[in-house]
Amino acid sequence: MPLQIFPTPQDAEAAFYEALERTDLELMMAVWSEDEEIVCVHPGGPRLAGQDQVRESWRQIFASGAAARLHVTKQVAISGAMVAVHSVHENFSGPGESGPMQAVVATNVYLRTAAGWRMVAHHGSPAPGTAEPPPASPKILH
Amino acid sequence: MPLQIFPTPQDAEAAFYEALERTDLELMMAVWSEDEEIVCVHPGGPRLAGQDQVRESWRQIFASGAAARLHVTKQVAISGAMVAVHSVHENFSGPGESGPMQAVVATNVYLRTAAGWRMVAHHGSPAPGTAEPPPASPKILH
Repeated sequence: MPLQIFPTPQDAEAAFYEALERTDLELMMAVWSEDEEIVCVHPGGPRLAGQDQVRESWRQIFASGAAARLHVTKQVAISGAMVAVHSVHENFSGPGESGPMQAVVATNVYLRTAAGWRMVAHHGSPAPGTAEPPPASPKILH
Repeated sequence: MPLQIFPTPQDAEAAFYEALERTDLELMMAVWSEDEEIVCVHPGGPRLAGQDQVRESWRQIFASGAAARLHVTKQVAISGAMVAVHSVHENFSGPGESGPMQAVVATNVYLRTAAGWRMVAHHGSPAPGTAEPPPASPKILH
């Protein structure tokens, strides 16, 4: 059973980045479609396809490091009745770090399913230039 | 006016890679949606959005180099009535080169529009490992 229903693509995306920031594997996989046709490319990584590869990659990422602070900027959204494509910059900073780190440019694709909006594709790659500094106020994902 | 109508996402994708291989800017832009909400990330590059940025990037790429031989492998397709997401490996080899070059993993998103299927997002990034060698027989894009 899915943990959550996401009524909009923005809800699914908020949960995706919350899961990433909290290193919460169950929430992360609740964002993804339950179909086998899902694809994920982590920055610098190979193309992963299917539930097993995608889940295992997030498990390893979450097992290997502390949670990062993250704020998402520069969203461009392509929106339809059944599909949403979001292009964003992911700006990470490590625990205790205040300076900007390398940003990631990500393409996120969501489909409207019987169980709400779900991610079917995530493609991240290092963005040239420097990440934006984190906001001075408490972080707001969206 | 669009140069061509693409009745299926595969037709649009075949034209995309034909345009890339032939460095044909008009065909390339005929594949893209005419909306402003289009996004393109070239391997190692920044996120580009909108007609002007996307067209200008392809113009520069096509102006800077000779056509490359290209074959596309390992397609994973997520297909709906109005959307198609294709994940592929792009295997390039330069003119006169027979050996494999670095592959690119690409996420291509197509929407069904009133003018046939059109690309709305392309995200490419270097794929770890080595590209597959080109086929011995004359290249077939699909």
